[in-house]
Order: sequence, then C-alpha cells, then structure tokens
Amino acid sequence: MALMLMSSVVFAQKLLTLEDVMSGGNNWYNLQPENRYTQWWGNVAVETTYEEVKELLTGKSLVTVERINEIAGEKVATSGHNILLPYGGQPIAQVRSGKKRVQVDWKLGKVVWSQDIPQGAENQDFNLKSKHLAYTLQGNLYVVTADGESLQVSTDGSTDGSDNIVYGRSVHRDEFGISKGTFWSPDGEKLAFYRMDQSMVAAYPQVDISQRIAGVTMDKYPMAGETSHQVKVGIFDVKTRKTTWLQLIGAPDDYHTNLSWAPDGKRLYVFELNRDQNDMQLVAYSTESGKLENQLLQECHDKYVEPMNGLEFLPWDANKAIMQSRRDGWNHLYLLDVTTGKTEQLTYGNFEVQQLVGFNTKDKCVLYLSNALDPRTSCLYSLNLVKPRCTLIGAGEGVHYASLSQDGTMVIDRYSSPSVPRCISVYTTASVRGRLPKLVANVLMATDPWLEQGYKIPEITSGSIKAADGVTDLYYRMVKPIDFDEEKKYPTVVYVYGGPHAHNVDARWHWCMRGWEAYMATKGYLLFILDNRGSEWRGREFEQATFRRLGEEEMKDQMEGVKFLKSLPYVDADRMGVHGWSFGGFMTTNLMCTYPDVFKVGVAGGPVIDWKYYEVMYGERYMDTPQQNPEGYERCSLLNKAKNLQGRLQIILGYNDPTCVPQHTLSFLRACEDAGTQPDLFTYPGGGHNMFGRDQVHLHERITRYFDDYLK
Amino acid sequence: MALMLMSSVVFAQKLLTLEDVMSGGNNWYNLQPENRYTQWWGNVAVETTYEEVKELLTGKSLVTVERINEIAGEKVATSGHNILLPYGGQPIAQVRSGKKRVQVDWKLGKVVWSQDIPQGAENQDFNLKSKHLAYTLQGNLYVVTADGESLQVSTDGSTDGSDNIVYGRSVHRDEFGISKGTFWSPDGEKLAFYRMDQSMVAAYPQVDISQRIAGVTMDKYPMAGETSHQVKVGIFDVKTRKTTWLQLIGAPDDYHTNLSWAPDGKRLYVFELNRDQNDMQLVAYSTESGKLENQLLQECHDKYVEPMNGLEFLPWDANKAIMQSRRDGWNHLYLLDVTTGKTEQLTYGNFEVQQLVGFNTKDKCVLYLSNALDPRTSCLYSLNLVKPRCTLIGAGEGVHYASLSQDGTMVIDRYSSPSVPRCISVYTTASVRGRLPKLVANVLMATDPWLEQGYKIPEITSGSIKAADGVTDLYYRMVKPIDFDEEKKYPTVVYVYGGPHAHNVDARWHWCMRGWEAYMATKGYLLFILDNRGSEWRGREFEQATFRRLGEEEMKDQMEGVKFLKSLPYVDADRMGVHGWSFGGFMTTNLMCTYPDVFKVGVAGGPVIDWKYYEVMYGERYMDTPQQNPEGYERCSLLNKAKNLQGRLQIILGYNDPTCVPQHTLSFLRACEDAGTQPDLFTYPGGGHNMFGRDQVHLHERITRYFDDYLK
Repeated sequence: MALMLMSSVVFAQKLLTLEDVMSGGNNWYNLQPENRYTQWWGNVAVETTYEEVKELLTGKSLVTVERINEIAGEKVATSGHNILLPYGGQPIAQVRSGKKRVQVDWKLGKVVWSQDIPQGAENQDFNLKSKHLAYTLQGNLYVVTADGESLQVSTDGSTDGSDNIVYGRSVHRDEFGISKGTFWSPDGEKLAFYRMDQSMVAAYPQVDISQRIAGVTMDKYPMAGETSHQVKVGIFDVKTRKTTWLQLIGAPDDYHTNLSWAPDGKRLYVFELNRDQNDMQLVAYSTESGKLENQLLQECHDKYVEPMNGLEFLPWDANKAIMQSRRDGWNHLYLLDVTTGKTEQLTYGNFEVQQLVGFNTKDKCVLYLSNALDPRTSCLYSLNLVKPRCTLIGAGEGVHYASLSQDGTMVIDRYSSPSVPRCISVYTTASVRGRLPKLVANVLMATDPWLEQGYKIPEITSGSIKAADGVTDLYYRMVKPIDFDEEKKYPTVVYVYGGPHAHNVDARWHWCMRGWEAYMATKGYLLFILDNRGSEWRGREFEQATFRRLGEEEMKDQMEGVKFLKSLPYVDADRMGVHGWSFGGFMTTNLMCTYPDVFKVGVAGGPVIDWKYYEVMYGERYMDTPQQNPEGYERCSLLNKAKNLQGRLQIILGYNDPTCVPQHTLSFLRACEDAGTQPDLFTYPGGGHNMFGRDQVHLHERITRYFDDYLK
Repeated sequence: MALMLMSSVVFAQKLLTLEDVMSGGNNWYNLQPENRYTQWWGNVAVETTYEEVKELLTGKSLVTVERINEIAGEKVATSGHNILLPYGGQPIAQVRSGKKRVQVDWKLGKVVWSQDIPQGAENQDFNLKSKHLAYTLQGNLYVVTADGESLQVSTDGSTDGSDNIVYGRSVHRDEFGISKGTFWSPDGEKLAFYRMDQSMVAAYPQVDISQRIAGVTMDKYPMAGETSHQVKVGIFDVKTRKTTWLQLIGAPDDYHTNLSWAPDGKRLYVFELNRDQNDMQLVAYSTESGKLENQLLQECHDKYVEPMNGLEFLPWDANKAIMQSRRDGWNHLYLLDVTTGKTEQLTYGNFEVQQLVGFNTKDKCVLYLSNALDPRTSCLYSLNLVKPRCTLIGAGEGVHYASLSQDGTMVIDRYSSPSVPRCISVYTTASVRGRLPKLVANVLMATDPWLEQGYKIPEITSGSIKAADGVTDLYYRMVKPIDFDEEKKYPTVVYVYGGPHAHNVDARWHWCMRGWEAYMATKGYLLFILDNRGSEWRGREFEQATFRRLGEEEMKDQMEGVKFLKSLPYVDADRMGVHGWSFGGFMTTNLMCTYPDVFKVGVAGGPVIDWKYYEVMYGERYMDTPQQNPEGYERCSLLNKAKNLQGRLQIILGYNDPTCVPQHTLSFLRACEDAGTQPDLFTYPGGGHNMFGRDQVHLHERITRYFDDYLK
C-alpha cells in the first residue's frame, strides 16, 4: 500500500474525465471510496461480500453463496449482497430470485420455506412475520399467502384495477413522505392499502418513438388547479379474505398520508390533509369496522402544513408513539399519547431532526439524526426517554447513516465528512449515565481513491454568506479550478437547485461536490453552489419564505452569491454561467431571463416554466392554485420572461419527462419564438426527468461543451 | 424616376436584413417587384386593383368594388382581387365572402344569384356552369345546389364520414398530381369524388401543447411497408341524388389518380397504379353503371411509373385527348384516341414538357411550357395539331407562367429572368403559317426594387459542372459575399434540397435565389446551390438514378460541387457548411455524417432520417418497401451513420411536422446519444413541416447564428 501511494504521488497529474466522475461512466466505480456492506442478524452485525456472509466484528464466516445455492438446488443467490438474515439467532438465509423467494436453513442444509413470485409482480411488499407477499400488477393488488395461495385484493364489486383505478401503489405522486401503497399490520395478517381513482384526472400524452410507428401513452397528471385524484384506504384481512374500507373524513381530494398501524393492529392512524394543505388532522380508524375512532390532533398554518412522517410506537408502550412536527418552526420529535392526543416535545432548538432512526428498547432511548451541530451536518443522537439525556454518538462531523441492531443497543454508523471519504464503525447506543455510547469497533476508514490513483483534485471549500434578508446564513460550496492561480480570472458557473426538499451543500465528502463540478474544475472553471432560502433542513420560516412566489426570494439569495463571487479577484464577472436541473432548471432559466446582464450562459435541465403545468400536490403547497393566486402564477411564469432572454440558454429535457412534462419547455420555446429570442434545446428520447447510465455521460459532455462554446 | 434612381445610387449601402428577405419579415412586401393582377373575362384581359376591375389593354373601368357592394347591399367584396368575371361578355361579377357566394350584374345593378356557404365548409369546389357547390366537413361530403338545397353525399349505408372514412378530400397524400377530392362533370351535374378508408392505417401521435393540458391528435400516417389506406371513387348525380361507385380494378391499396371526365360526362378516366408503382393502366369507367368500359393503355417500368396529369380533351374532338407520359424518358405530350387507346407522340426531344397550358380552339393549337431551350428555363410554346408547327411565344429566356383567354387565341404571359424581376405581356397564340404569335401589349416591365431602394446586392451567377457520372450536366447557383474580394477566402455554405419533384436553380429572377442566401451574402458567406441527379425537370433517367438508394448518388453529385468549390481560390475549404430542409435535411445530415472531414457545420431542417418512417406513396416509389429492399433501407438510414458525426449539426423541426414526423429526428438523436455523438436540436411547437410568418424570420436568424457561431 505504501508503495502504491508513493507511485501515485509521482504520477499525480491525471485529469478527471467524465468517465471517472459520472455514475454512468466506465471508470466511476473505480473511483468510489472503499465500502463494506453490512446488515444486522438480530443483534449480530454481519457483512456480506460477493461470496459469503460473515460476522462483521469477528470475520467468522456464516454461510457462502455457493452453499446456499447448493442447498436450494439452484442458483437463487448471485452474490452475498442478495442474502438477508431476517431472523436473529436463526441460521436462516432469505434469498430472492426473479421467480421465487426462498428461506434456507444453512445448519440443517435444507430449504425451510419458499414462495413463487408471480410473473411481472411489482411493488412487492413481503412481510417477514407472516411470510405473506403483497404485490401489484396493472392496477390490481394481490396477495400470495405464506402457503402460496394467490388472492386478488382489488375486487371491489365491479371496479377492478385499471389505469383509472389503481390499487396498492403509492398515491399523491409520492408527496407527503409517501413512497408505497401497501402497509402490513405488525403481525402481517392484515394489509392496509391505497386505492386511487384517477378517472377524473387529465392525462398527459407521452410519445414513445422506439416503436415501429411512434405510440402514445396517456399518463394521468393532475395539474395545479385542475381536478385531482381521489384516494381511499382499505384493510384486507388475509384470514377472512374481506376488505374493510376506512370511512375517511374530509373531501374526496384530500390527502391521506403516513398510514401507521397501532401495535395491536386494531387501529390505523392516518395524517389527513386538506387539498389546500393548511389543515392537518391525525385520525385513528378502527381496522375492524373502518369507522372513525378518534381525531387525535390538528395542525393548521397560514401557508402550509406538510406531514412527512408516520407514527413510530414505543416498543415498550403501545399507547405512546413518536411523532414528528414542525409546529414550533423546526422539525422535532414529540411523544404522542394516542389515548389522549396529548403531545410532549422531546427535542428543542433551532435545528432539524432529519430522521428517526429507531429505539434502544433495553435502555428506552430514541435514536435520531439531526443537524444541531451545524446545518450542513447530520449526526446521530441517542435520547433517553426515561431520564431525559441526549448524547451524540460517533463523530460530531459529517453526514451519518445509522442502522440499529434488533434491540437497538448497537448501531452501525456510516459517515463521510469533507476530508473523510467513508468511515464505518459500530457503537453502543445507550444514553444512560455511566453507560454512554462507546465505540465497539472501527470497521473501515476509507482512503481517498482519487488521490491514490493520482488524479488532480480541485480545492473544495464551504462557507457562508448572508441571505438577501441580511440576517440568514446561507451555505455555499466553492470548487476552484485545478492549478488555481489567484492572479488569474476564471469563468465561473453557478450550479443551482434552490427548491424545497433538497440541498446541495453539506458536510459529506468533498462538501457533497458533484462529479461534474470536479470535471469542470479540470477544464478551468470555478464552480459555486449556494443553498438559498426555500431549501432543505433549515426550518419552516427559511423554507416558507418563498410561499406563493416561487423563484423570487431564491433568486435574490443567488444574487447575493453573485455579489460575493464578484468580490473575489479571481472570478471573472464577465464570464458567469449558471446550470441546474428541475427546480434548478427553473432557477437557471429564471436567472438567465431576469439578470441577462449577469449570466452569459445557462444550461437548464427539465425545467419548470410555469407552475400551472406542475402537479397539484407539490405545486399547490407552495403556490396555492392558479385560481387562488393568479398574480403569483403570472409573476413566477417564465413565459412572461421569455422576451428578456439575451445570453445563451440551452434547455435539455428527457423527451418523456413525466415530472416536469415537456409542455413546460415547449411552451417556453413558443414564447421565445413569439418574442424573437433564441434559446437552445436538446432532448433525450425515452428519457425521464433525469438521465441515467451512458445518457448521463452524454448529457454532461453536452453541458460542458455549451460552456466551452460560449463562456470560455 | 430618374431622380429617385440617382438618390438610391448615392445611398446604395443598405444591407439586407431578414426582415427584408423573408416572406414573414416586416419589410418583405416592399422589396417585391411591382406586380399587376390579371384575369380573363372571356377573351378580354382584365386587371384587378384594390378598388376596381378594368380592361387591361385599354384601362377602361368595368366595375368598382364600391359599386358591387352597393348592389349587393353589403360588403361582400373587400378588394378587386376578390372579384371574378366568370362569364365572357356578360356583366356578371362573382364575389365570395366567408358566408356566401354572390353574382352581381353590374349593368342591371342587381344581384342575379347568390348561395349561402355553410359554416366551416372546407375544400369548396364550385362549378360555374351548374352553380352547384361541393364541400367537405369533418370527413363528410356535401353539395349545395344552385337552388340552395343542401345534400349529404357521404351517406353510404351505415358508413358516414369520420376520421377513418374520409369523403371528398385529396387522397394518396397528395402524390401522383392529386390535390383535391371532388371533380365536377363538364356540365356540373355530376360529381366524381374520392372516398378514403384509412381505418386500417396506423396513426402518428401529434401533441398539441397549446391547450391547458397538452392534448394529442392521432394523425393517420401510412409508413413505408405498412398497411395503406383504401380508396374508392363515387359519382354523385345531383339530379337523382344517387351515388354510383366505380367498380375499380386492381388491389384495395392501388392508387386511383388523375380522374378525368369525358366531355359528354358518360365516362370517367382513371390512371390506375399498383402499390408497387411499376404498372399503370388508363381505365375508362361508365359513369352510369360504374362498370369498367375499357382498359385503354398500360405503362410499366422496372423502377416506377408516375402518372402526374389527367387527360385534357381536345375542345374540337371529344374522342381525342392530350396525355402526358415519360415513356420515352422525358415528359412529353401525346394525342390519345380514347376509342382505340392509340397514342401519337406530339413533342419529342431531350427536354421536359412542364405544363399543358391549354388550347387555341380557333387554330387548333395546344399551348405548353417546356424547358427545351435550357433545362433551367420554362418557356411557352404553341403547337399546331393540324399542320404540326411549334412556335415559341414571348421571350426565349426565364421562367414563364401563362394564362389563356377563353378561346385560347390570346395569352397573358408572365415571366422573370435572372435580370428581369417581372415582365407581363399579352400575345396572340396561333402557330399558323403567316399568323405566328405576336406581341399585343407590354403590360409591365418591373424595375429592380432592391437596387432602387439602395440595397447592396450580391453577385449571383449560374453555371454547370459534370455530375459524378462524368457525363451529366448539373446546374448550380453561386451567391458571392457582398463587397466580394477574390483575394480573400470566404466561409461557404452549400444549400441543398436534392430530392425529386423539386429544383433550386432556374432562370428566374436572381437565378431563383432564396432571400436567406442574399442575407448570408451580406454576412460574408459564399452560397452554393447545385441541383443533383434525382431532382426535377431533367428526365426520367436523371431522376431514377437514385432508385432504391436515396441519398447516395445525390451526395456523390454534391461532392462534385464541393470539388468545384475547392478549385476556387476564394472558397475557404476549411470553412464549409451545409443547410437544407426536408429532403435537404436528409441530405444535410447525410453529408455531415458521410463527409465529416469536409463539412464543419450543418443545419438540417425537418429531415428524413430513415425512409421506413416516411410515407407509403412517396417512399415506396423511390425505395420500394423495407420488406422488398431491406439492404437499401439499411444503407440509406442515417441511424447507422449517427456514430460518424463530428462537426456541428443542428436539426430543426416543426414540433408537429405531419410530413417528416418527429420520429425521424428523435430516432437520430437517440442513435447519436447511444453512439456518443453530439448533434444540436431546435423545434417550433405547433409548427408543421415548414415555418411561416414570424417563425420563418426566427428560424433563419437561428440558422444564420449557427453558422456565425461555428463556421465564421
């Protein structure tokens, strides 16, 4: 290793290429920091490799892939990474191939259970306790029982699943923390599921040119202010084969979010939100009768309320659950008594709880991630709920991911920081006097693969400036050109996203630098990335500053970034560009049209152009409807700014973008054509909202070339 | 006038802009040569102005617009150009407003006849003799009789008109000289019409983004090798209200072209062509019974036969008609005896008859346009059919348009030549010994509006080079940069079309220069335009050289043009670009991908990329079907050449191009993306195969900018 490091120092003149830095590039994998793949087998940490599963701390082999396939009598596992050890203490390995799910006892040397997976099964939701599998197929919802019996859930009298009536899939376009449509009860014998009626929703025509003669798919897409879909929640009882429908309160187009089962399976809790998104209730329903049992609490706000997380019941008290709320302005944990609806705030302060990780059941602690130390970090904390005491676990820097053991007494902590590519450790988690979290083992401290392989690495820094309000700190990342010479003046590109639910700057490796930024640095550009007001993890007020006028405050903040850049002697203010995708495409187009004297070149990807073409759920949260806020929609519409375009702006989109539908970009082109301005365009047929694989490399070659053509 | 000319010389430094040279530009109209609008009133030449109709030769006023509206009691005429004098010798003016068609007797001072036009009536076909009006509406065909009775023609049992069954419209996608779908009998009492069943034809999805939520129209588009539509011909008898269907011979997807009525209305002649387009028959049907009466003649060819013109019966002999055929290799006139099917060739030689203008009935002459003098010209000839004698009428130069008087003894001749912007004259037409055509009056000799208004005009020349076969002459136009200095080296752009049924170089004003070429000349480019083999008016062999391998010979010829350009000291061979639209877009993309070392920059508009995406009628004529000619389709497909792209190629298309459907361009993009090459793209939402109005100006600004960016 020492020799290797030396030789790399000698040849440390390699320039990063797109093949190196893009995930679709052919050398990307070789430039990733070393990794180890871990999981918990009950309370035993295990590691998977391509060949085997072994104990993480001792290295003791548990079972090999070869042995599992031998027992199964066929090649069910292709790699140790496909193997799950679902039951602590039991020598059971679960493997899923395309056709079946198999549990193998590697001690007994036999298959102890298996279940065929129906062809084409989507959205598979397998319950480890009952071994029932829920899945969807073409709008319908099915269950395969542990015994292999196949049941169709979605027979509701005459209305089976279709493109119009969709069962068991994620609803409300994945907003409000929703990412799936089936929810097993704790014992795995009842299945809560969504049923979405979108027959009344308009469809966007998506053209598929890969067919002999281009075809069209009508993709249901509720646009802001237009008729939205209607969702119901059913409870399917596997034993009785009966479905009970919840008698949901509210209007047909309300949002029913974050379904949470009571530990005993008798109640289902639903966070109900009105379409205007300013009135939320937590409602309990009987899973037997479907009837309303209790309206536990209500949260209202002038702008909007956004429930993003369900209830997590205390493993030791079935009447108490952890709830998350931004009611005090920051996302914090609350202890909810579900018998009374009373809440007790658990965390306080001008920071955000980013994730509830789980519980240490032995010591009655709750584990969570928050950015209390620095808005750019995400660190792990253990909070004792009996004798309130909160303790940091692991390094107080960087961005952490935590995986708890079965009883929560141990955690596998993974993090990176600006200078640490990857660190994996095991810690205890008790936040108890005299028994504070301690390091069990350092599993991996990855070295810098870029440095080791002799690449020139740009200087990457982070800092803060004041927002346009003069008060708020905004964090930026700056990537300087390689061979930086502060006597020179460099063309500078602002990369921007700027929308809610995302950020670009955090204390990850390289300050979260994107590969393309490193590539641009090798081409002699300075890159600047600023998380403006409206972006993620900075509290409610920070986010809601943009309410009903998306783009305006965000741009003001970005222009503070520009002011800062112009104060730097090595930034060439005559050669400033901007690039962003999605909300960042909106920002890019907006900045190009609003500050034509500042930005000479822009590349906008998959942009929003007019919020009336965006979806109901996200769009109306921030903008209300076009009917409620006509002035806001007009002011924020880039159709009205198309006439101001002066610099070079290339818009790039996936030809079949189902998120920011092509109507955005095409309407902007039409507006430019009518106004006599000249944007540029590119598209990826078959591409969606983002490009992947080789398209990603092609795309970034394209983006880079555009700056090379017009900014360099 | 002399003073004016002098002052323009003094200020002759104005540079042409796109607003000057594009028809959508705001100064285009002012730069058009002076014009006079004429028509025949029987054998009296008349001129229309905005205010009145007057005799052309005497200037005597016949009637004013004001007077007609006064008589009509409403504003039916908005300009003299809307007025038709349909009946020679009778003081009747016919005017059509949006709502009605009116005939006014200006001597009697009263409306003598009028007919309401139903709302939305399309494809209006009004017969001056019977005064019946045929029109279509949403797939259906109707007749309004002279008396104002409304009849629906398209009731064929259960099958009324629809998107699938279309009555009375042009069929076979306007190929084979077809431009309409209704054909009145000579007495105007019977209506022959097409009925097209396209229910079995696949549809191309055209997305309309101008709606609140983008919508889609399924546009029936038969692609090469795929199922085509099926056409029938009906005869509707206005008196009996009955439709007789012709019992057409041949296969259901044969082509039924150039419907021609016998003078007595008892027969309808149809040029029937098989789908393979190599076997044509002229067939006579009884219009009473619909039955086949006679298979008059047959023309076959290894490659293809292309009937483009119907029969024109001699006004003095109902058994004889003029037919056009390329059977000897050039388009010539034949005298057909319809009782025997025997033909007699009337014109001979290595030139093409371009148009049969009509007959001088008094002297039994046939008038036609041909390019016998020079392939670039189109001159008017009178051929005596009794004592064969052929005489040129008017100037033996330029490109002529001719309009015959009622008895054909006089003609209004309009032409331009490279140095003559517009000349209008009246001639006699007899080609009889001692009574040869003579000039009656010079009506207009327009001066050069560009020169008069003080614009710098580039030097425009035409010449010929040899084709790649070493034998054939090809004609080119060259437009030199303004302020041309032969010591300098100029960036050079080849403009190309290259496909059949069109040409770019002829002996019109400015050698047929397009306005954009003049604009490019002001920007310092040299333009070169060459009509390669495959293009128009050069005979069958010249056209058919490209059979089953479109693009290959065409490119070889264009490369001869490049060789010629490279021989010129003032052409910069390192700065060569290419631009073309439609077939020219195909050529441009092809040249960019086939000769990446020659062409640095290309702009391809609405290109064909793979002939399998083009329509049955045109595509299969030149390429056969993909099933018959798989190697040819593969060799000619630009999808296979996408990987060779090196230079800068921008493809531009109308987003709703119904001719070269977007699948062409999008498939090419996909191929480039997969191959890692980088074309550029632009599109006009709502635009079709060509751009009009302001879009045209925008488009050419865009095209010019691309060359400025990368070629200059």
